[in-house]
Amino acid sequence: MKKLTMDELNRVSTAEFKAQEKTPIIVVLDNVRSMYNVGSVFRTCDGFAMEALYLCGITACPPHKEIAKTALGATESVNWKHFDSTVEAVGELKAQGYRVFAVEQVDTSIALQDFDFTAGEKIAIILGNEVFGVDDEVLPLCDGAIEIPQAGTKHSFNVSVAGAIVMWELFRKIEN
Amino acid sequence: MKKLTMDELNRVSTAEFKAQEKTPIIVVLDNVRSMYNVGSVFRTCDGFAMEALYLCGITACPPHKEIAKTALGATESVNWKHFDSTVEAVGELKAQGYRVFAVEQVDTSIALQDFDFTAGEKIAIILGNEVFGVDDEVLPLCDGAIEIPQAGTKHSFNVSVAGAIVMWELFRKIEN
Repeated sequence: MKKLTMDELNRVSTAEFKAQEKTPIIVVLDNVRSMYNVGSVFRTCDGFAMEALYLCGITACPPHKEIAKTALGATESVNWKHFDSTVEAVGELKAQGYRVFAVEQVDTSIALQDFDFTAGEKIAIILGNEVFGVDDEVLPLCDGAIEIPQAGTKHSFNVSVAGAIVMWELFRKIEN
Repeated sequence: MKKLTMDELNRVSTAEFKAQEKTPIIVVLDNVRSMYNVGSVFRTCDGFAMEALYLCGITACPPHKEIAKTALGATESVNWKHFDSTVEAVGELKAQGYRVFAVEQVDTSIALQDFDFTAGEKIAIILGNEVFGVDDEVLPLCDGAIEIPQAGTKHSFNVSVAGAIVMWELFRKIEN
């Protein structure tokens, strides 16, 4: 086994990334407190070529040293936009024809592996605050909730980890 | 939609976790530098009830304040063990009948969605150092490498994010 060099990996440049067709998914951060989590989500959004990242409420925006520490340049490639409130972001997404899903553990949530959509469909996923999850005002505006099944002792996954797991699952379903 | 309380989520206690049947996967950290990454992997290993977490070389072990910050108690539930070198850990795993796979971008790697195994099979996955990846001495000892497909500008995913994506993919294949 021989590790691939950056050249052999044949990654796109930032300009090529901006121009290329994206995975038709928008990721929404609902009042995420930790800038390390914000940066990490940027990096994962770059990796799966997400359409955009919406930063809502208290979620910090680039440029910021702490975001840069985990984003490692992905703030330059990924399209992002700030909204004063997540309610406002969801309103705009629905007006643009997106189906909007909270990543949350609710009484009616759909297990991630069972989440069904068609390849061309425009989907937005909302990742909530580290302590409070997706805001109670935002939940009723969503088309549903996606839950990552868990078998352990903890309440939930880290927000950037949960985001990555859901992004991968949607990416693989679209690509395959 | 109504958020589920911790009671309604019906999570296992640490004692129940210790006693329950695990996902037959061992996660190996090969000289991971960041304790936040180590803690995050602990938390994800708890969520997917991984068999064990092996901490190798310079990878820090609990108890440690920085690991605890992202593990949030998962160091108490997840079985873990330290090895002076990753080579030693791989030797023990192979002697115990584990098939061992590096999470790495190599010339012969298998795309994650195509990675095939049978439900009862014992699998170990190795996550490498943040800069150098899985050690060049360790790679030839592995049965193969698993690669997460990427469509962005960056070389790779964060190590705890990559680990979570691979753990989810194996967990969903075993559970479904």
